[in-house]
Amino acid sequence: MEAHEKGFFTEENSVEVVTGRNRNAKSERLKAVMEVITRKLHEAVKEIEPTQDEWFEAILFLTRTGQLSTEWRQEFILLSDVLGVSMLVDAINNRKPSGASESTVLGPFHLADAPELPMGANICLDQKGEDMFIHGRILDTEGKPIAGAVLDVWQANDEGFYDVQQKGLQPDFNLRGVFRTDADGRYWFRAVKPKFYPIPDDGTVGKLLHALGRHPYRPAHLHYILKADGFETLTTHIFDPDDPYINSDAVFGVKESLLAEFKSIDDPARAKGLEFAGPFWEVEHDFVLARDQG
Amino acid sequence: MEAHEKGFFTEENSVEVVTGRNRNAKSERLKAVMEVITRKLHEAVKEIEPTQDEWFEAILFLTRTGQLSTEWRQEFILLSDVLGVSMLVDAINNRKPSGASESTVLGPFHLADAPELPMGANICLDQKGEDMFIHGRILDTEGKPIAGAVLDVWQANDEGFYDVQQKGLQPDFNLRGVFRTDADGRYWFRAVKPKFYPIPDDGTVGKLLHALGRHPYRPAHLHYILKADGFETLTTHIFDPDDPYINSDAVFGVKESLLAEFKSIDDPARAKGLEFAGPFWEVEHDFVLARDQG
Repeated sequence: MEAHEKGFFTEENSVEVVTGRNRNAKSERLKAVMEVITRKLHEAVKEIEPTQDEWFEAILFLTRTGQLSTEWRQEFILLSDVLGVSMLVDAINNRKPSGASESTVLGPFHLADAPELPMGANICLDQKGEDMFIHGRILDTEGKPIAGAVLDVWQANDEGFYDVQQKGLQPDFNLRGVFRTDADGRYWFRAVKPKFYPIPDDGTVGKLLHALGRHPYRPAHLHYILKADGFETLTTHIFDPDDPYINSDAVFGVKESLLAEFKSIDDPARAKGLEFAGPFWEVEHDFVLARDQG
Repeated sequence: MEAHEKGFFTEENSVEVVTGRNRNAKSERLKAVMEVITRKLHEAVKEIEPTQDEWFEAILFLTRTGQLSTEWRQEFILLSDVLGVSMLVDAINNRKPSGASESTVLGPFHLADAPELPMGANICLDQKGEDMFIHGRILDTEGKPIAGAVLDVWQANDEGFYDVQQKGLQPDFNLRGVFRTDADGRYWFRAVKPKFYPIPDDGTVGKLLHALGRHPYRPAHLHYILKADGFETLTTHIFDPDDPYINSDAVFGVKESLLAEFKSIDDPARAKGLEFAGPFWEVEHDFVLARDQG
């Protein structure tokens, strides 16, 4: 009998011996997943050839990453984010037909119960930041408007914080709103210009970024979830292309098609119509939804 | 400019974009390690194509694994063990010249301050279990005895527990001892026959083993650390080849060369000489140490 038939481990047969133990797995999917994970893990270990101390450092890093996670903070999701895994899983699960708007990561700050607002409402409830007017259409891939599409938007304030990160300092549901497109597929609302902000960087992931010479910033963006009957739900962002971090998003969320134009408008008549006190930012951006495959 | 030059992520360029951010890493080793980890992680994700739910299940599994770890329990080491990673790291760091005894995993139950005992001492302090006499030699790869070699031995009792797992139930330092070889490189001591036992299986790793149709048992073994001036320190086990789990060690620690013979001896005169009341087990095993490369 060869060593691996006896279940004995060698450097050469390591993958075969370990995955061979999963013959009686309760699920074929789990068996297949663990085969890939074991094989890739062993490939990585064989290529890295870690010392025992490096292995133990990795064990402690993973342990502390788990221990830092609470109901309010998920350090393993941050790790997945900064290694590009979250974006990769998002990409794999959201391959869009040509012409449809692309997806990006959901992020941790969506609230399911944000209020539905009348079109044109100002989602900024505390008058802090630079006024912004956002509008556009929600279309299908043939360019036809989708009426009654639901647009769920949320963003950080001009200091880079979401309402849920500053409870008591920002009004509840500040900079969040749900809108429904009209018969022409149009949406419009008022907000404030968002700003770049760091992901939480006081934990294991922050230390890793620092050691890798990386910054923790995400470029300024607004979050959207777009839903319409008969169409795939789209979770996405729009980004300010002039943001200093646009080419180095800490979580790799930026895609070419998600860049919007943030125009500075100095037009007292238009400002007055929008109930803004002075110059404001204008963003016009159309979204294209893919038809449901189901 | 191509998408990756702008730092924009696509399914195709994912590895290049993520590892490209590590240009200014503070350590070349960390940069190289993270390049491999990122590449193998992305390869695994692309092959598995996890759903968002499966990705989140993995996040929760890792989080709970970290949170289960305490000063007394290291669930991530268990995970490394059952995936064969600990044995692989051990193998990579302990490639031995032909003829030298092979290494295996240290395990979590070694104590640095076990007492040095006179040759022949009985390390079983509570008279529980089947008596065992163990002896042999510590040799160099030319077969010459090593005098003054230090043999640090520890084992579970006949119920499968180490002293530190049963504080108050077993005497302190039960089934542990440090011996020093004589001029002929010989060692001998008394103990009890070890039994198979499960690794802790009430956590995330136990659940994973169950889902994979795997048992949590390690076949009966004794642990050794062998040290001698001018030789590489050897961390190893000897195993009972008749153990029911010898071909399916949950942590893959078994190697062909670590199998010892456990002989049942019914010889009243020999038993009396060893101060045993009746039949006993005899194990004769030589260890071969590799010369220090340093």
